[in-house]
Amino acid sequence: MLTESDLRDIRHRALELLGRAHIILRDDEKNAMDVADFGLNDFGHTGLVEVVYVNNERYCAKELVLLPRQTCPEHRHPALASSDGKQETFRCRWGSVFLYVEGTAAATPCVRSPAGSEAYYTVWHEIKLEAGGQHTIPPDTLHWFQAGPEGAVVSEFSTASRDESDEFTDPRITWAPSKTLL
Amino acid sequence: MLTESDLRDIRHRALELLGRAHIILRDDEKNAMDVADFGLNDFGHTGLVEVVYVNNERYCAKELVLLPRQTCPEHRHPALASSDGKQETFRCRWGSVFLYVEGTAAATPCVRSPAGSEAYYTVWHEIKLEAGGQHTIPPDTLHWFQAGPEGAVVSEFSTASRDESDEFTDPRITWAPSKTLL
Repeated sequence: MLTESDLRDIRHRALELLGRAHIILRDDEKNAMDVADFGLNDFGHTGLVEVVYVNNERYCAKELVLLPRQTCPEHRHPALASSDGKQETFRCRWGSVFLYVEGTAAATPCVRSPAGSEAYYTVWHEIKLEAGGQHTIPPDTLHWFQAGPEGAVVSEFSTASRDESDEFTDPRITWAPSKTLL
Repeated sequence: MLTESDLRDIRHRALELLGRAHIILRDDEKNAMDVADFGLNDFGHTGLVEVVYVNNERYCAKELVLLPRQTCPEHRHPALASSDGKQETFRCRWGSVFLYVEGTAAATPCVRSPAGSEAYYTVWHEIKLEAGGQHTIPPDTLHWFQAGPEGAVVSEFSTASRDESDEFTDPRITWAPSKTLL
């Protein structure tokens, strides 16, 4: 459970990384970032901050902020009754991120999955993104990612986001982000 | 008609503005920017540079670059047989842009429409965007925009882009962008 003090600290660290990426946010956006610990209570290792610019029935755009070596856990975006599964394009703006998707596994991956959760990381085709690097994830395919040693700021362009419909490999995970609003 | 020398100069100026916005592009992207003069042969006043990150059947993301006081002319995105009209969200990243949409006209607009083309600018509800400012344009509604005195870099998040289907108020306009590839 993230405390108010945790959220204040996370907001501060996320704004510092967004500043390094020269991303300019309004005050209302700075105060309403989504902070997800995925219910694992280990934000430093498994977590994510999102700044959602727009999310409607047709498209979505956001910035993702990852602390150094922080992981967004393995998941997929299944088709829903109302729509095909979410497709998303990641574009790294600052730092670096190791993205893992379905396909030939890397023989010697550059990162480790979070300790104690190894069983829930099953796809190991490795794509390294640095600033300007970009990759598109097809609907309903497994993926996860981990920031490099400095952290990362990644723009996500996609179809509508319905994060609560994401299917995580780790059955302990819940999607219930906190807001940074203090 | 834009010459190779024009394109070299435009590429240089667009990259300078993108640099001020701290947007990091790969070399292949720098060499494949779309330069549109809308067939009016007056790029300094009516024109636009686009860097398209992704454009598929479901969503699109690009950066728009406008030189100081340059105008993107009035148009709308009609519904097509295959899809609803394009909806787009503009987010100013650097500089300033005056966006004009349908609605109550500004009594004293901050900008003038391009000289000689005044008849083709019919909507005057004014929205000023500076870095961090954002506005969404519904499908099939008229809009146009002009950069402020320093120029502008604007991120566009949207449904699929089918620029060749845009309907411009000015019947002289054609959408046939040149590439900066030299």
